[in-house]
Amino acid sequence: MSVRRSSVAALLASQELDREVLVKGWVRTRRGNKFVQFIAVNDGSTIHSIQVVANAETFPEEKLKAEGVENGAAVAIRGTLVASQGKGQTVEIQATDIEVYGAADTTTYPLQKKGHTLEFLREIAHLRPRTNTFGAVLRLRHALAFAVHQYFNDNGFFYVHTPIITGSDAEGAGQMFRVTTLPEQNPPLNEAGQVDYGQDFFGKATNLTVSGQLEGEIAAMALGKVYTFGPTFRAENSNTARHLAEFWMIEPEMAFYDLQDNMDLAEDFLKYLVRYALEKCQDDLKFLTEHYDKELLTRLQFVVDNDFQRLTYTEAVDILKSAKQKFEFPVDWGTDLQSEHERYLVEKHFKKPVILTNYPKDIKAFYMKLDEDGRTVRAMDVLFPGIGEIIGGSQREENLEKLQQRMQEMHVPEEDLWWYLDLRRFGSAPHAGFGLGFERLVLFVTGMANIRDVIPFPRFPRSAEF
Amino acid sequence: MSVRRSSVAALLASQELDREVLVKGWVRTRRGNKFVQFIAVNDGSTIHSIQVVANAETFPEEKLKAEGVENGAAVAIRGTLVASQGKGQTVEIQATDIEVYGAADTTTYPLQKKGHTLEFLREIAHLRPRTNTFGAVLRLRHALAFAVHQYFNDNGFFYVHTPIITGSDAEGAGQMFRVTTLPEQNPPLNEAGQVDYGQDFFGKATNLTVSGQLEGEIAAMALGKVYTFGPTFRAENSNTARHLAEFWMIEPEMAFYDLQDNMDLAEDFLKYLVRYALEKCQDDLKFLTEHYDKELLTRLQFVVDNDFQRLTYTEAVDILKSAKQKFEFPVDWGTDLQSEHERYLVEKHFKKPVILTNYPKDIKAFYMKLDEDGRTVRAMDVLFPGIGEIIGGSQREENLEKLQQRMQEMHVPEEDLWWYLDLRRFGSAPHAGFGLGFERLVLFVTGMANIRDVIPFPRFPRSAEF
Repeated sequence: MSVRRSSVAALLASQELDREVLVKGWVRTRRGNKFVQFIAVNDGSTIHSIQVVANAETFPEEKLKAEGVENGAAVAIRGTLVASQGKGQTVEIQATDIEVYGAADTTTYPLQKKGHTLEFLREIAHLRPRTNTFGAVLRLRHALAFAVHQYFNDNGFFYVHTPIITGSDAEGAGQMFRVTTLPEQNPPLNEAGQVDYGQDFFGKATNLTVSGQLEGEIAAMALGKVYTFGPTFRAENSNTARHLAEFWMIEPEMAFYDLQDNMDLAEDFLKYLVRYALEKCQDDLKFLTEHYDKELLTRLQFVVDNDFQRLTYTEAVDILKSAKQKFEFPVDWGTDLQSEHERYLVEKHFKKPVILTNYPKDIKAFYMKLDEDGRTVRAMDVLFPGIGEIIGGSQREENLEKLQQRMQEMHVPEEDLWWYLDLRRFGSAPHAGFGLGFERLVLFVTGMANIRDVIPFPRFPRSAEF
Repeated sequence: MSVRRSSVAALLASQELDREVLVKGWVRTRRGNKFVQFIAVNDGSTIHSIQVVANAETFPEEKLKAEGVENGAAVAIRGTLVASQGKGQTVEIQATDIEVYGAADTTTYPLQKKGHTLEFLREIAHLRPRTNTFGAVLRLRHALAFAVHQYFNDNGFFYVHTPIITGSDAEGAGQMFRVTTLPEQNPPLNEAGQVDYGQDFFGKATNLTVSGQLEGEIAAMALGKVYTFGPTFRAENSNTARHLAEFWMIEPEMAFYDLQDNMDLAEDFLKYLVRYALEKCQDDLKFLTEHYDKELLTRLQFVVDNDFQRLTYTEAVDILKSAKQKFEFPVDWGTDLQSEHERYLVEKHFKKPVILTNYPKDIKAFYMKLDEDGRTVRAMDVLFPGIGEIIGGSQREENLEKLQQRMQEMHVPEEDLWWYLDLRRFGSAPHAGFGLGFERLVLFVTGMANIRDVIPFPRFPRSAEF
C-alpha cells in the first residue's frame, strides 16, 4: 500500500510513532560515520528539519555521496517514524528508502557554505528562500498577510481591488512610473509638439498607482467598510534600507468613522497582527530573535500589551522643544517631523508606540479634514520603535466646498478628480482611513534591518532582477 | 448613554428587540403618506435595506424633503428596533431621530432613476457600487478573494508576492506594457541608435508582469507549497466581454506535485470556492439569480456536486471529430481548441466541467513537462460552462537539459532566465502549478456576462478612468 506524503511540520508534531512515513524535501546537512548517516531534511513547511537516520550497512556514505545526497539535493525519504534518541528533536525517521530527484553540485551550489551575508543573498534572491533566515521571513510575511485578510473579514470589511494603472496622479505622493505602449522612439506628437497620449493604449497618459485610497473611498461610500491590499509604486531614486520602488500597501477606508474611530482601529489592527505572528510563528520568531535581534520577542510582546500613546502634533512639538537631546534638524511648529524626532518620542520619551494627530494642514495631503481652527487637519501617524511611521491616515474632508478650496490651494486639478468630488456631491458622509506599508510591518515583526530582505524580489534603483 | 452603531446586517439578524439602536447608511427609497413615512436605509453590509418607520407627526414629509431625506442621502437614524408589521422583513426601526450627513440632489444624482443599463453604470463606476447589483458583485468578489486565502492557508500554502515590474518577458504570454521614467521625447540612445535603457530607473528595460509563475516556482522550490494572488497585465487590443488589460491572477505552485496532484488540487480548490460563495453569500446570489441568470444557483450547486470530467486532448479531438455539430473552425490534432469546441465538450457532450490534459507541445509554453511520447506535454486546462478555460496549468519540466532544449526550440533566451534554470541545476524536483484568472471566477460565480462588471475599475483599450 502506498503511504501518503507528510510534511515535515506534521511529522515533527506527530504523536503517532512506529509507522511508515514518506517525506519529500531538500537536504540541509548530511553527516555521520561508517555505522550511521544522519540527513537533515527540510521541506519549507517549518524552519525545523527532520532528522533521517540511515543505517550505513544499507546506505554507506560512498553510495549516498555518489547519488548526490548532499546539501541542497531534493530527495524522497521512506522510513519509519520513531522517537528520537538525539537532542533537540522528539522524532526522527529510520530510513528504508532514499530517492534523489535532483542533486546540487557541492562545488557550484551557491548555498554550499554557511554564513553568507545578507548582501550576497540578495544577489541570489532565487535561492535565498532556501535559507533558514528567508524561510522564516517568508513564512512570517505569509502569516501577516493572511492575518490582514482574517482581521478585516472578521470585522465586516470588504476587500477591494483598486486599479494599478491609473490616469491620475492621485495624491501627488511622489514620482510615478509611466506606463505606455507607444513607440520607444519618435512617439506621435500633437499639434503643440507634445507626446500625443491620445494614441496610447488607454487614450491618455497613465502611470503606476501610488495609493489606492481615493478609489477606496468610492467603495467605502457604498459598502461601508473596505480595505485594499495591493502593490503601489514610487519612482524615487532612494537607495535606502527603508524604501522600495514597488511595495505592498494596506488601505482600509470606513464610512461614518471619525479620527477617534480611525485611531482605535489602527491600534487594534496592529496589535492583532503582532499577536497573530506571536501565536502562529513562534519557531520562526525564535530563530530571528536568536540570530538577528535579541530584543525582538520582547518588543513584539510590548506592543501587544501596552496602549499606544496618543497626542497632537502641537503637544509633540512642545515636548521636542523642551527635550534635553540635541537634534540635527530644528523643531518648529509647522515643519514636518524628522525621523530623529519621531524616534525620540517613541524610543526615549514615551518608550511605546505613539499616535500623533492634528498636523499642520500645510504639510499634509489635500483630502484631510480641516480642523475647526483652520490651521490643522485630522491626520494621524502611528510611530513604531525602530521603524518610525508605520501608518499614516486621516479623517477625510467630506465637505465639498472645503475640499475644493484645499484642492485649489494645493494645485490639485478638479477635472482629474471629478469622480472624487462627486462622492461629496451625492450622499457625502464623515469617513476616515489609513495606509499601512506592508513591508514596514514585516520589517518590524521580523526584526530585519533592510526592507530589501522582507520582500521576495525587491525593486529599487538599477535593480529589477528575477 | 450613547448607543453603539449597528450594521444593517447585524440588525436584520438580531433577535433582541425593543431596544434603542443607531444605524448609519444611505437612503435607498422614501415613501409614505401624511401619517407615516417609510425610509429604506442600506449601509453596504448586506444587499437588504432596513426599513425605518417615521411617524409623520414628528417627521412630516415636507420636513424630510427639506432636509434631503431622499434616495442617495447619507443619514444617521436613531430609534427602537421592533418586530416589523410589513412583508419581507422581520424587524424595522421606529425612528426617534434622523440626521442627514449629505444629501443627493434629486435632479442631478445619476442613480436617481431605477433600471440603468450596465453600460451606463460602467461610465459612473464611482457610483455603481451603490446599486444592488454591484453591491452584490463586490461582496461576492470579496468573499471569493477571502476564500482563496483561507483555502491555501488551511492547506499549508504560503502566499508569495511576486514582482509586478519585471525585467523579463516570462512566458511570452502576450503584449506587455512598458514601465519607464525616461524622458517622453528624445530618450537617451546607445551607440547603436537604440533607446539606452541602461539609463532608465532600473538600469534595464522593464515591463508589467504577465504572470508570477516563474518567480512562484522559485518560492515553491524552497517553501514547498506557495501561491500568488496579484495583478497581471496584457497590452492586447481586445475589446471583448472576456478580456481586461489589468486583471488579478491566482497561481499556486507545488513542489513534489505531478499532473494528477495538480488536477486534484484544481478541482478541490474550485469546488471549495464555489461552496464558500453558496454558503456565505446566499442573499447576493439569490438577487443575481433573480435578476440576471435564472440558472445561476443551479449551475453553482452542480459544479460542487459533480466530479469534473478528465480526459486527454487527444481523446477530446476524437470526440469533436465525431460530433454531429458543425463547427466554424475545423478540429485537427495539433491545433488549439477554439471556444466553440470547449463549450461543446462542457455544455453539450459531458454537461459538466472538464479537465483536458496532455496537449501537443507546440501549442503550449516552454516550461511544461514533456510526455514520454515526445509530442505532448503535461498541461491541463479546466473548462467551465459559459466561461471556457478558467484554469490553465501543468506539471513543469524539471530536467535541465530538456528544459534548455525546449527553450531553444521556442526561442526563449537562456540569459534572461538564468535563475529559472538554476532551479533545475540545484535540487530540482518534480513540481506543478496552475493559474486561475480571478475575474473569470467572479464572472462564473456571479453569473454576470461582461468581465468589466466584476472588477471595480476595469482597464481596457482607451479606458483608464477613475
